[in-house]
Amino acid sequence: MQTQTFRIGTASVAYHFDGSFTALRSLTDRDHTVIITDENLFALHGKRFKGWNSIVLKPGEDFKVQATVDAVIEQLIDMGADRQTTLVGVGGGVVTDLTGYIASIFMRGISFGFVPTTVLALVDASIGGKNGVDVGIYKNMAGTIRQPRFILHDLAFLATLPDAEWRSGFAEIIKHAAIRDSGMFRQLESHDLTFFRKKKKELAGLIKRNALLKTRIVQADELETGDRKLLNFGHTLGHAIENQYELSHGEAISIGMGFAAALSSVLTGFRQADRVSALLEKYGLPVAADYDRAKVLDVLLKDKKKQQDTIRFVLLERLGKAVIQPIPFTQLANFI
Amino acid sequence: MQTQTFRIGTASVAYHFDGSFTALRSLTDRDHTVIITDENLFALHGKRFKGWNSIVLKPGEDFKVQATVDAVIEQLIDMGADRQTTLVGVGGGVVTDLTGYIASIFMRGISFGFVPTTVLALVDASIGGKNGVDVGIYKNMAGTIRQPRFILHDLAFLATLPDAEWRSGFAEIIKHAAIRDSGMFRQLESHDLTFFRKKKKELAGLIKRNALLKTRIVQADELETGDRKLLNFGHTLGHAIENQYELSHGEAISIGMGFAAALSSVLTGFRQADRVSALLEKYGLPVAADYDRAKVLDVLLKDKKKQQDTIRFVLLERLGKAVIQPIPFTQLANFI
Repeated sequence: MQTQTFRIGTASVAYHFDGSFTALRSLTDRDHTVIITDENLFALHGKRFKGWNSIVLKPGEDFKVQATVDAVIEQLIDMGADRQTTLVGVGGGVVTDLTGYIASIFMRGISFGFVPTTVLALVDASIGGKNGVDVGIYKNMAGTIRQPRFILHDLAFLATLPDAEWRSGFAEIIKHAAIRDSGMFRQLESHDLTFFRKKKKELAGLIKRNALLKTRIVQADELETGDRKLLNFGHTLGHAIENQYELSHGEAISIGMGFAAALSSVLTGFRQADRVSALLEKYGLPVAADYDRAKVLDVLLKDKKKQQDTIRFVLLERLGKAVIQPIPFTQLANFI
Repeated sequence: MQTQTFRIGTASVAYHFDGSFTALRSLTDRDHTVIITDENLFALHGKRFKGWNSIVLKPGEDFKVQATVDAVIEQLIDMGADRQTTLVGVGGGVVTDLTGYIASIFMRGISFGFVPTTVLALVDASIGGKNGVDVGIYKNMAGTIRQPRFILHDLAFLATLPDAEWRSGFAEIIKHAAIRDSGMFRQLESHDLTFFRKKKKELAGLIKRNALLKTRIVQADELETGDRKLLNFGHTLGHAIENQYELSHGEAISIGMGFAAALSSVLTGFRQADRVSALLEKYGLPVAADYDRAKVLDVLLKDKKKQQDTIRFVLLERLGKAVIQPIPFTQLANFI
């Protein structure tokens, strides 16, 4: 296990790379910790949770809603949790988003940590302190920004990760490469998902590289007033279609990236839209879809990144270099 | 209108004392503002809200719950609110608590301001950034600490304030006097509620004195790691009985202060418990009540101020000087 501590805003976050779940006991006092996980993970890795107070949620984005927050808070009260309690989210992005959010508001804020168990959570959702719940079809409409005390990586959990989840995770990895790291983009082009699933060392390296890439962006801009916005590449259209069409997050943002890359060709003179689409397809991800344009535009009108009559869209200038451009809704409507 | 700006944590909060609601237009852009208020206030002062986007809540502590938060967020989305929107809570403590909380989590945090319209909200609830909702019978179990951009005082709203609300507000004023300002304690002893309701200037002075007293405590300790805890005088027992017995907040904490003063006589040698009780009664507040001891102890066991087997209780050493003392639950059970 390698430990590195990062300052994010006023918080200090300890990352334990290439660690093991058993190390959790050295990171948090078991008597004052409650684990939050989901039924899938609990069924597959039940033994690991033995001896820990655990709250087990129904799995999936459908449960990333306020009703789950209320139910967990009631369970925490019944368990005698207090301001000294630490919550540990063990799971994918839904579990880490919920855990971070509940810890941010329970008794006006208690300490929390993460054991991300999916590629997506390892490279993205667990990092940066954004958390929250969906409201209706609107993603992450209620939330806070608050950093975990620690993030513990145990890649052994990936042994049971479904194929679709692998693809979803690589959608975020490809996003990181497209906006910030052309070297990694080429590395991804020269391999494929089968390669990374087989090669433990290369996978660990790739995960760490992505965790560090996102961490550096968040360190420079915790509150998303600048460069952190670039991480929304593919997410504007992606979020608008994700909950409407029951796509996985990875599929939705992959379609969003395909769209944003094509839009970049028109608006910034970006010339590699084909390479972006090809790489997404190489990792089993869709780059286009039929959707109801009017419905999607209606959701976009309510996007968090909206500002009056324009929406700030993340475009590519070249591979590894993203920019933000305000696009009027009327213009966007024509492209969609 | 006198404006004074206070630094609280990293935030800057503008207080507009002795102002007028019409000044709100100079504090926030009407096109990007949504007012949150309740039906009582809207019925009594409807004219004032003309031209403002408003969300009107059902009145009372029963609605300080998550379901209200969800309903307001859905309305905000429908109204096209975005990250540039400012929420303004116009009302008593329930409205300001809800408004501050919704603004803290909507789109991960937008700007907000308050127009407190009750004595309690003017001297207490609007100040210090604590906000949140109740979960079941547990008060403020979900919340955040986040400061408003401005607080606008317009004492004209007090013309329609019900008697019970006046008494509730003075319970917090007496609390401030007891823990921090023996001069104000004597001032309160030499007058009564009728006096302050008649004398506009004296009332304005008293409200400002209390707003400043609380602000200074919060400035020194925004996150309640030290002296801010003293503001919980009377609140530990008070909160435990408030939602169980449908007492007003003022009645509940008055009973709590009566209990804490009597407990102080035993534990700190405090000699003025009679004066505390007499002053509360002079302002029409109860100092004792019949309640189910077992039920109350059960709620205390889940108090936010609990730490393992003890609870940190605020006691008086003398008038104007409070201290915190950890009391084991077993000992507390005997006193109750």
